[in-house]
Amino acid sequence: MSTATPAGPATPADPDPASPPSPWTRKHLLGLEELSREEITAVLDTAESFSEVSNRSRKKVPALQGRIVFNLFFENSTRTRTSFSLAAKRLSADVQDFTASVSSISKGETFIDTARNIEAMGCDVMVVRHPTPGAPHLLSQHVQSSIINAGDGAHEHPTQGLLDLMTIRRAKGKIEGLTVALVGDIAHSRVARSNIWGLLKLGARVILCGPPTLVPRSLERLGCEVAHRLDDVLHRCDVINVLRIQFERQQRALFPSVAEYSHFYMMTQERVRKAKDDLLILAPGPINRGVELTPEVADGKHSAILDQVHNGLAVRMAVLYLLGGKAPEAE
Amino acid sequence: MSTATPAGPATPADPDPASPPSPWTRKHLLGLEELSREEITAVLDTAESFSEVSNRSRKKVPALQGRIVFNLFFENSTRTRTSFSLAAKRLSADVQDFTASVSSISKGETFIDTARNIEAMGCDVMVVRHPTPGAPHLLSQHVQSSIINAGDGAHEHPTQGLLDLMTIRRAKGKIEGLTVALVGDIAHSRVARSNIWGLLKLGARVILCGPPTLVPRSLERLGCEVAHRLDDVLHRCDVINVLRIQFERQQRALFPSVAEYSHFYMMTQERVRKAKDDLLILAPGPINRGVELTPEVADGKHSAILDQVHNGLAVRMAVLYLLGGKAPEAE
Amino acid sequence: MSTATPAGPATPADPDPASPPSPWTRKHLLGLEELSREEITAVLDTAESFSEVSNRSRKKVPALQGRIVFNLFFENSTRTRTSFSLAAKRLSADVQDFTASVSSISKGETFIDTARNIEAMGCDVMVVRHPTPGAPHLLSQHVQSSIINAGDGAHEHPTQGLLDLMTIRRAKGKIEGLTVALVGDIAHSRVARSNIWGLLKLGARVILCGPPTLVPRSLERLGCEVAHRLDDVLHRCDVINVLRIQFERQQRALFPSVAEYSHFYMMTQERVRKAKDDLLILAPGPINRGVELTPEVADGKHSAILDQVHNGLAVRMAVLYLLGGKAPEAE
Repeated sequence: MSTATPAGPATPADPDPASPPSPWTRKHLLGLEELSREEITAVLDTAESFSEVSNRSRKKVPALQGRIVFNLFFENSTRTRTSFSLAAKRLSADVQDFTASVSSISKGETFIDTARNIEAMGCDVMVVRHPTPGAPHLLSQHVQSSIINAGDGAHEHPTQGLLDLMTIRRAKGKIEGLTVALVGDIAHSRVARSNIWGLLKLGARVILCGPPTLVPRSLERLGCEVAHRLDDVLHRCDVINVLRIQFERQQRALFPSVAEYSHFYMMTQERVRKAKDDLLILAPGPINRGVELTPEVADGKHSAILDQVHNGLAVRMAVLYLLGGKAPEAE
Repeated sequence: MSTATPAGPATPADPDPASPPSPWTRKHLLGLEELSREEITAVLDTAESFSEVSNRSRKKVPALQGRIVFNLFFENSTRTRTSFSLAAKRLSADVQDFTASVSSISKGETFIDTARNIEAMGCDVMVVRHPTPGAPHLLSQHVQSSIINAGDGAHEHPTQGLLDLMTIRRAKGKIEGLTVALVGDIAHSRVARSNIWGLLKLGARVILCGPPTLVPRSLERLGCEVAHRLDDVLHRCDVINVLRIQFERQQRALFPSVAEYSHFYMMTQERVRKAKDDLLILAPGPINRGVELTPEVADGKHSAILDQVHNGLAVRMAVLYLLGGKAPEAE
Repeated sequence: MSTATPAGPATPADPDPASPPSPWTRKHLLGLEELSREEITAVLDTAESFSEVSNRSRKKVPALQGRIVFNLFFENSTRTRTSFSLAAKRLSADVQDFTASVSSISKGETFIDTARNIEAMGCDVMVVRHPTPGAPHLLSQHVQSSIINAGDGAHEHPTQGLLDLMTIRRAKGKIEGLTVALVGDIAHSRVARSNIWGLLKLGARVILCGPPTLVPRSLERLGCEVAHRLDDVLHRCDVINVLRIQFERQQRALFPSVAEYSHFYMMTQERVRKAKDDLLILAPGPINRGVELTPEVADGKHSAILDQVHNGLAVRMAVLYLLGGKAPEAE
């Protein structure tokens, strides 16, 4: 796949982390909804310049030496936490996991107390995952550290949105003007929400596709097209992002059966043949082979699944660098 | 608050860790009971010189580079373990967690076998938490590594005692001659015990305050005053340390109700108004807001709760430095 | 004990990790069965040159700086995982644990997906433990990273075999011509299997000793002697390796009682007296004192239990160095 590497404004291997690229002035990364096109582009450009670090045998730059990154996870997530940890280590930061059980922090106050305690030990960036939408935003008002939202309920998962954008931009050379379909459980997906904001801001047309229970018509108000049959829109798509069916989260069945879901929405070789020749297929892991896409498609030439994982590391390095490289204001 | 920084004998950023400050010659930190006033003061002075490291953007000194610190925890403790881990990393040591379940080491021999195995992998300092009083002492007789007691049953928690002392000394400029009340479950508290030894050795007057079930009159034999009503002694206190009610440890109720406990012992704004103007309030976390102290008091100007956490890191760096900086005798 | 230090071909502290010693050209360490005598000797020689690093106060060499080692464990193992983690840190690599539950990877595909995801984040060496024999071999066909088998079902545990060989060679100065008995549950033991291959290749005579349920006569086909009474072969042994009885794995009783097992197979002082004067006793931990050997024997002068742990670290450093020091081929 062609790899577009825009001339990035950043030189992240530069040992002086005090001068991040100019369009980025925020202290936190809470969601893509509040970012401008220029800010999103600044993160993607910085990520490009970090991308090659993962291919070196010495996978390390000194940018955040002596800085401390806390993973404050109130939901299990081995993959995202691992990606953030490796990104921080590659920037030479020290990483500390703080995995709390939600039960021990049933009161909102105590969630903030926990974060304040962490901050009092010395912390530059907190990577926060929480089941409650808005929890990272609340935290950002009560601590001095930079906050990265690593997923808050069904609200946003901005670094996933950014890595999807990076993967599309690398493969297609641009995002403006592309037609991108998000397929699956849009209503309950933070990944969908961050993708929608990011894609719309960068000028893509977004189609939300799935059964009415998972993709209600009301989502059109976000500025997206809504479709209930993948085969109706398949031929128009440059990119299809098949979201994971989160069996573990579906308390009640939102579609009649997995077989029926797969019949209508699974990416198969047959559907790939009906699509554009240069269709790009994304799927945030872990994937359910045989549910959202067939093994052949997952491992086929249109699939960018492992590129997403690779780019996720670069995006997280970029975000940690842009937030953590600032001189701490107070502690 | 005024911050007293005694001229410390240590220059801990010095890359030669072989010459710790002279009053400290011990290999282990097992409790404050066995330390002299001079030894306690040496730790506090060393901690002062480490305190500012946490405020730097590069939070790291090379003192223990290549040394290995094991966290050997036989009880859950995210906070204390995290504080020790960060302290070790800030000294450039490598840290390894070894969390054992008590069930797998029901025999005393096997507890020692576990530690000997760890030592055979190469270990300079073992940070040990164990539900059995005296477990770290037993270990110190069977291994060559330095042992730090990170809490042994209801016996001692010396680094918590030291960080409380440091917090008082920083706020008040001294400890000698102060009146300090420990409020709550004194009988079952290792934090209380370490505080009592440290405060008495440094010349403070100690009042133990709580219901008779938690503060039996017999504790007077330690050289402390015993009081059963906080309001009787409040006006005489320079410092009040409100201990956490450990609901999780109280098998049977030791007081009639939480409401009644709070009525008599919770630090409220009203009680703060009746106390000295410069009253200092400590509370080892995690706090139960609305039980030991009100949210207003916890977040108010008399509260040193977050200073305690900050100082905890400096104290643990100091202890690791004083013990781990020595040339290992044998392995 | 005498310590034989063969002139090792490696100079592992050399900052250029691109030139490992010549006899070793493999990308993976999957088992001792497929290694030649020369390859095994190359690992042992490299381990010798790393052994003294653990005795330094600065326990660190820069050989794998910026390389990433993943611990991918699908079975619990605090000891082995800790040993690999420390070995990697001592080589200045970054280590990342990825502990997966087997339940989440019930499909073979998904096990490989997990590993491919890890690799996409950037990974030089994967240390893999899995309950299924052959799982690491399967993985080695689907990823670009180097794979180290850290135990696959009852098949092999090659670094345990290597550390046992190293311990014998250090104590005896050679392996060729020695008589070594493996005592216990041979049939279900990956440790036994790796020991058998390694010992036979290096020219030792191997006796497998235990009750017929655990040591079937059919094991003679491996080129070993089979014995059902320890007292029959004791006087001929230079080395006895008493394997751990894995109570947690024995679904049905494979011998009548622990007391009976110990009566026939436990190493006691009385048995030690009947054996050769320079008998060497190995026991892979964690040991059951009073089952496989008495406390007196475990702590006595013939026991090399803690030497095994110490040598395990050197062996794992050597293997990580030999595999991870190569320039990554592709990622």
